[in-house]
Amino acid sequence: MSFFDPEQEDKLKEECGVFGIYNPDGSAAAPSIYYGLSALQHRGQEACGIAVCNTNGPKGNITWHKDMGLVSEVFHEESLDSLKGNIGIGHVRYSTTGASTVENAQPLVLNYLKGTLALAHNGNITNASELRQSLQEGGAIFRSTTDSEVIACDIARERTHTSCVEDAILQTARKLKGGYALVIISPRKLIGVRDPLGLKPLCLGKRGDSYILASESCALTAVDAEFVRDILPGEIVTITENGIKSDSRLIEESKAAHIPHAHCIFEYIYFARLDSTMDNVNIYDARIRAGKALAASYPVEADLVTGVPDSGLAAAMGYAQACGLPFALAFHKNSYVGRTFIKPTQKERESAVHLKLSVLSSVVKGKRLVLIDDSIVRGTTMASLIRMLKDAGATEVHVRISSPPFLFPCYYGTDVPSNDQLIASSHTAAEICASIGADSLGYMKLEDLKQMTGDLPLCKACFDSHYPV
Amino acid sequence: MSFFDPEQEDKLKEECGVFGIYNPDGSAAAPSIYYGLSALQHRGQEACGIAVCNTNGPKGNITWHKDMGLVSEVFHEESLDSLKGNIGIGHVRYSTTGASTVENAQPLVLNYLKGTLALAHNGNITNASELRQSLQEGGAIFRSTTDSEVIACDIARERTHTSCVEDAILQTARKLKGGYALVIISPRKLIGVRDPLGLKPLCLGKRGDSYILASESCALTAVDAEFVRDILPGEIVTITENGIKSDSRLIEESKAAHIPHAHCIFEYIYFARLDSTMDNVNIYDARIRAGKALAASYPVEADLVTGVPDSGLAAAMGYAQACGLPFALAFHKNSYVGRTFIKPTQKERESAVHLKLSVLSSVVKGKRLVLIDDSIVRGTTMASLIRMLKDAGATEVHVRISSPPFLFPCYYGTDVPSNDQLIASSHTAAEICASIGADSLGYMKLEDLKQMTGDLPLCKACFDSHYPV
Amino acid sequence: MSFFDPEQEDKLKEECGVFGIYNPDGSAAAPSIYYGLSALQHRGQEACGIAVCNTNGPKGNITWHKDMGLVSEVFHEESLDSLKGNIGIGHVRYSTTGASTVENAQPLVLNYLKGTLALAHNGNITNASELRQSLQEGGAIFRSTTDSEVIACDIARERTHTSCVEDAILQTARKLKGGYALVIISPRKLIGVRDPLGLKPLCLGKRGDSYILASESCALTAVDAEFVRDILPGEIVTITENGIKSDSRLIEESKAAHIPHAHCIFEYIYFARLDSTMDNVNIYDARIRAGKALAASYPVEADLVTGVPDSGLAAAMGYAQACGLPFALAFHKNSYVGRTFIKPTQKERESAVHLKLSVLSSVVKGKRLVLIDDSIVRGTTMASLIRMLKDAGATEVHVRISSPPFLFPCYYGTDVPSNDQLIASSHTAAEICASIGADSLGYMKLEDLKQMTGDLPLCKACFDSHYPV
Amino acid sequence: MSFFDPEQEDKLKEECGVFGIYNPDGSAAAPSIYYGLSALQHRGQEACGIAVCNTNGPKGNITWHKDMGLVSEVFHEESLDSLKGNIGIGHVRYSTTGASTVENAQPLVLNYLKGTLALAHNGNITNASELRQSLQEGGAIFRSTTDSEVIACDIARERTHTSCVEDAILQTARKLKGGYALVIISPRKLIGVRDPLGLKPLCLGKRGDSYILASESCALTAVDAEFVRDILPGEIVTITENGIKSDSRLIEESKAAHIPHAHCIFEYIYFARLDSTMDNVNIYDARIRAGKALAASYPVEADLVTGVPDSGLAAAMGYAQACGLPFALAFHKNSYVGRTFIKPTQKERESAVHLKLSVLSSVVKGKRLVLIDDSIVRGTTMASLIRMLKDAGATEVHVRISSPPFLFPCYYGTDVPSNDQLIASSHTAAEICASIGADSLGYMKLEDLKQMTGDLPLCKACFDSHYPV
Repeated sequence: MSFFDPEQEDKLKEECGVFGIYNPDGSAAAPSIYYGLSALQHRGQEACGIAVCNTNGPKGNITWHKDMGLVSEVFHEESLDSLKGNIGIGHVRYSTTGASTVENAQPLVLNYLKGTLALAHNGNITNASELRQSLQEGGAIFRSTTDSEVIACDIARERTHTSCVEDAILQTARKLKGGYALVIISPRKLIGVRDPLGLKPLCLGKRGDSYILASESCALTAVDAEFVRDILPGEIVTITENGIKSDSRLIEESKAAHIPHAHCIFEYIYFARLDSTMDNVNIYDARIRAGKALAASYPVEADLVTGVPDSGLAAAMGYAQACGLPFALAFHKNSYVGRTFIKPTQKERESAVHLKLSVLSSVVKGKRLVLIDDSIVRGTTMASLIRMLKDAGATEVHVRISSPPFLFPCYYGTDVPSNDQLIASSHTAAEICASIGADSLGYMKLEDLKQMTGDLPLCKACFDSHYPV
Repeated sequence: MSFFDPEQEDKLKEECGVFGIYNPDGSAAAPSIYYGLSALQHRGQEACGIAVCNTNGPKGNITWHKDMGLVSEVFHEESLDSLKGNIGIGHVRYSTTGASTVENAQPLVLNYLKGTLALAHNGNITNASELRQSLQEGGAIFRSTTDSEVIACDIARERTHTSCVEDAILQTARKLKGGYALVIISPRKLIGVRDPLGLKPLCLGKRGDSYILASESCALTAVDAEFVRDILPGEIVTITENGIKSDSRLIEESKAAHIPHAHCIFEYIYFARLDSTMDNVNIYDARIRAGKALAASYPVEADLVTGVPDSGLAAAMGYAQACGLPFALAFHKNSYVGRTFIKPTQKERESAVHLKLSVLSSVVKGKRLVLIDDSIVRGTTMASLIRMLKDAGATEVHVRISSPPFLFPCYYGTDVPSNDQLIASSHTAAEICASIGADSLGYMKLEDLKQMTGDLPLCKACFDSHYPV
Repeated sequence: MSFFDPEQEDKLKEECGVFGIYNPDGSAAAPSIYYGLSALQHRGQEACGIAVCNTNGPKGNITWHKDMGLVSEVFHEESLDSLKGNIGIGHVRYSTTGASTVENAQPLVLNYLKGTLALAHNGNITNASELRQSLQEGGAIFRSTTDSEVIACDIARERTHTSCVEDAILQTARKLKGGYALVIISPRKLIGVRDPLGLKPLCLGKRGDSYILASESCALTAVDAEFVRDILPGEIVTITENGIKSDSRLIEESKAAHIPHAHCIFEYIYFARLDSTMDNVNIYDARIRAGKALAASYPVEADLVTGVPDSGLAAAMGYAQACGLPFALAFHKNSYVGRTFIKPTQKERESAVHLKLSVLSSVVKGKRLVLIDDSIVRGTTMASLIRMLKDAGATEVHVRISSPPFLFPCYYGTDVPSNDQLIASSHTAAEICASIGADSLGYMKLEDLKQMTGDLPLCKACFDSHYPV
Repeated sequence: MSFFDPEQEDKLKEECGVFGIYNPDGSAAAPSIYYGLSALQHRGQEACGIAVCNTNGPKGNITWHKDMGLVSEVFHEESLDSLKGNIGIGHVRYSTTGASTVENAQPLVLNYLKGTLALAHNGNITNASELRQSLQEGGAIFRSTTDSEVIACDIARERTHTSCVEDAILQTARKLKGGYALVIISPRKLIGVRDPLGLKPLCLGKRGDSYILASESCALTAVDAEFVRDILPGEIVTITENGIKSDSRLIEESKAAHIPHAHCIFEYIYFARLDSTMDNVNIYDARIRAGKALAASYPVEADLVTGVPDSGLAAAMGYAQACGLPFALAFHKNSYVGRTFIKPTQKERESAVHLKLSVLSSVVKGKRLVLIDDSIVRGTTMASLIRMLKDAGATEVHVRISSPPFLFPCYYGTDVPSNDQLIASSHTAAEICASIGADSLGYMKLEDLKQMTGDLPLCKACFDSHYPV
């Protein structure tokens, strides 16, 4: 199976999405996790898994199912039915490493001195190899090359001299550097943790007496839950039969150590789903504002504003509103061209983009267009789209990108292509404009990012190399 | 495998799409057919198939592969590679009958006295049972319950006393009543036939020296071919190594018999892809005009115009343009909720629509909306969407439907639910408006249909019961 | 999927097995057909299928399932459950043709003027191409290249001017030349037909009020039915709610035309299962007698008698009994080396036989062996086995073959390799003996075949070219 | 998937088979492991796996593939091709635990401070839970509930303060109680270990310059290797580019501690393959001797001796030889009734045995039979077989069992049913004889076991409760 997805090509990749639920009424957790993960599928298409436990059954009896593939491929009615338990977590994974095997799929389930634990993790731990080395020196053995196993192993190690699993998690969290959102079942508790920087998102929802943790609020909507609030950077929440409690010790310590908040800007630009709200910023609104900022910085005389489906549509609408130009759909998207589609060989066609997106000729013919997308990675897709538009009769194509040029590596879990694949790392905007065949090109200005997200403290190191720690 | 597709639910169904290609340079036909069928996948998701033949190989050696499922599910590199031949046809099928088995998949390949034949058919033959009876009386036996087998069998029967296969096809076509677009390989020729009414679409394309036949022009674009023209109602075209020739005898006979042209209105309203042009009418433009006509007939004081993705988006843009209101996206569509998705049980949730489409709350909150879709079948989906919009804070939802109420059965291949499933067959517009929870409801007026398609002679019997024959 | 089966390599191939059942009590036919086909699996491993009908349901509603693969691969509980009906037939197929596709799998189900018909066929029709030509001239079209479709089509043709399906079948049978055993459902009747020569086997069983037709009696045992009798050559039996009736018209006509009985000798030598009884000859006993005849014709001074598992074991026991030598197992058979096993490449090993069969060294070391098998086709397997025995310390290996050399093609359904693959067609016994590395070699004498099967009239044309017609 | 295998029903179960190979010439290890595991498939049908490493590649780069199913189901050409490396190990698994998941499949591959390790294990560690507890107290976390993970973890722990992995393995082996045969790659070395009692078998073979380790000698034959010798109880052998070396420290220590040798008697009675030789005892010969001992202890006036295929055949031949009665095959075995076969429901038939084995009526009719099998577990299969024989006309059936009654649990890896499933635990031989419908019943006498295996020191605790430690 090849993991070709035309819509995911030439895009930055997120690593994961997590979801957890506790149903105190004893009803099955797995169906809600299934729907929640489906709503988070855009965060990872490589593998997925669900682990559940029955809080009223024999302690420590966690059952799970995980495999390579989409949620709808990995889970069927039979597999969902076999996941009996009222507390559970789930995970969707995109792997940045070559070793994309089922062994690396999550949740990770493990047995240790104090019982059983299941853990799902979104993020990247920058000191993972030091922690791994230290654990190995203490005798730990590893089955995978994931950060997640390092975290789980450290929690298990800490648990031997703490009085409860939350304290062990706190001890581990104190050591972890980088970005992480964790959901853990252990096995009568559902625990959520967010890194002190707030790099990775995690939010809390409620449906009747059930509490839910999810990477994005859209997963709450999918299970008919109400959004309660974002988990705070550094917060550890524990949900038991007695309700929810919050541990703010790590928050306090981080404050004392002057650790800033630094929410990942790419969630707002591209990763998060349009209908999510994250750290009080509505994603759709943010992208509309990005389009407006682009219009202010790079106005152009044109007939129509359009966006690359689906990543550029919201910003395009913002741009159109700001400059008073009509917004139009310039492309039709073939929703049947997906992961299992056979990619054309070079001989047959230059770009698979052609099969996924086709131009609405009557819209663009004879028109001067503004074409918006959220980012340019290699530039190949954008070049194809511009050629398609011009072949269909567009007289001018002015490209506007709702993010600054991506120039620096991300250490917190975003899969950045190597420099030789990033067109912006070796070319000026003018060179890129020429290379993709655009009539003009404008990138969002670094100083305009705050127009998208307001006062929200951001990590935008991929644009300016100011890493938060 | 269940064939649940949330986006296809509560919609009218088309029966099929066809594609044929002749590569005189000897290059493989199968890859182009694969990409062409992918572009026609919206016309049928139940089964598909490809049959090819080598015009330079031993005569009559047709190889084929067909199965239940999407093009991307049925064909893999191995199966495409095994389809060796430079001339071929393909088919995507949506079945109206309960017996949706692989036996009914197309193309149909058969051996008869004069050789081998492969045939793919889009449409419905209204006198199929009489023809079947007559053929059976002549000793024919059938393996399937499809009209296509009746057509193929009759061609084979006629072929025994005609000098070429085209003449046999003409003889058969003279007998056929109803709507049909046929592509046939036999085995050194690619033949296309369109019914005299022009109910079913078929067009001709060209790429280098290769000729292509396809249900819609979007399939030509997908294989980098240029649109040449529509096949005329009643025309039979034959493509051989000597190029293309057209047989207009059936056209003349139909004219003499005063048989009108009657293009299926539903192609323009819903079936055809936005980027196709059919019988000189561009589909996108037609839907924009439909929206404008709706705006003229049913204006309303509102803040935003939006459409149900993806079926109502174009008409929504037309409505917005006509009345000067802003167009907005009110829903996010989850492209990972597809055919293999586990449908929620009644207990878990009232409607799967919820998982496929989610509201962009910040867009609709506090707003008076016009919501456009192309049709209402049972009304359940529309009711769910309106409830979702109101839950998200929309203050008013005015529904506009870009087709008249569907009241009469279609005998030409469109899968119409039975009357008890059609909300319009037993309720007035006012009752429907109340039942779906809309603040107002307007259906396209019958007399406005000509605004969509101009002078094009239409079959709109499903709205007015004026069947063309 | 490759159809490598080490135990089937270097063997003659049968074409098919058939099974039919009528449960007047209304209970499901499919489970019994499943078990019956499993007992007939040795007759064909390429494809299989089941077709059933409910005699109390709407007439003509035949449902079926068929596919490439073993019975245990094609059918699962779900597919069996979906086959609702109390009357049904089944088929296991080994294909002699290159075109082994699912289209050629049986039962064949078809609709014609007088209703519906399902047919399963074991055998080969020698005048099939003339019949096909004649049917095609009458307008018939074919979907497959099988004889079975010719038979079915002719029955349908005849049915148009006969008063019942049995008469149509009789009319068709009068035209058919060659060997055939047919089971047919139509749709309130189960009909069995056997060719006038009696080339292909068919027997009748009973369980309670249910009648059963099967290629071999072992399939009756598998479903707990009692053997009633063999269907007579030329007999047509019809089973309805009123019980069984026999039509002997074809028998009488064949007698009048002096058509002899000619039962296929290879059923007794190799095809039939050890525990079957066929035309009053018990297969196990016949093979024991074959071994005894070999011992009388080719005695040899030796220490042990052994057979190639499983094909030579019975004859080996007969040989041992006749000459007073001990019988021993010289090979262990690995039952896990089956169809899906990856065959070693030439580089890795000369013969896959090695992995399927391994020598019991302690049995053969220092021993002079008689090694029995039922036939030699290419000779490669036998050469490997002899080398393995000698490598393990056997001092002499005397090969005895319980059939005469296979020299002439079979026109009745046995898959004979082409002459250049048949070692006996171009080599003397002495040459073969040298080539396989045996110390002596004896083939069953032609005149001794009657010792196997007594007075039973045989077709042994493959040995002596005396074709029965 | 259900793991029903009629031939494995009502039998004791072994836990595993292991295989390892080092090809110093750099050729791929995986194909030989595939064929070796196929030869060991009788030792475990639930799951299997292969792990390989390239001794000339980057250190520690172990690749592996494992899954539920037979070797021929889990591995295909593609998966074998992807296992690049000249050193490797493999495992076939039968699980005694309920949790038969892919997580528990072997080889186990892990990363620890000193590198990478792959381990495959046959056996059962009686002090596993103490070791697990101790490791957990040291911070270890576990992913599975297998002993194998405990062993691997302990080796990793020991490796931190030893100079080479062999020393770590020795340290671990000193702690292990119970039976085990281990093969390990680490990653430039192939290491084999056998428990000091010699409970579990392990032998050494050679093919050219390649060394091979395998649970049974039949796996050496399968890869064309020559048997060199058995690994000694307590021996640790290490194979590197410099050849093989043996570490006998554990042997010496065990001797000093007066730890006896105690080879599992069930390998000789049932587990091992007929063509293997184990600790200098040839399995086929041992079973022949078992039959002879039975004949001496329980002679009976009868006409024929037969065995239950395949488990009782060798002992039956021995019994026949000893008492001068003819040996005969009384059953035909259907080799197509395997794991994926649909088991008849109670309603359809009392026993699936019927479909797997059918009686050769002409052999048994009117005969007094001696029927040999290697063991009786629940007694249900034997009762079915006796009823089938009598239904086919056998006048008497005298059952002889080539092992004593199984009365005590095994702690070393044999899967013993609970007492309420063991007919011998609550019934006398006379009661069992009556219950299964036999005319007489004789179990091998405890004191006769030495006739099977000579002076070989045995563990026969399952018969006499004398556990070796």
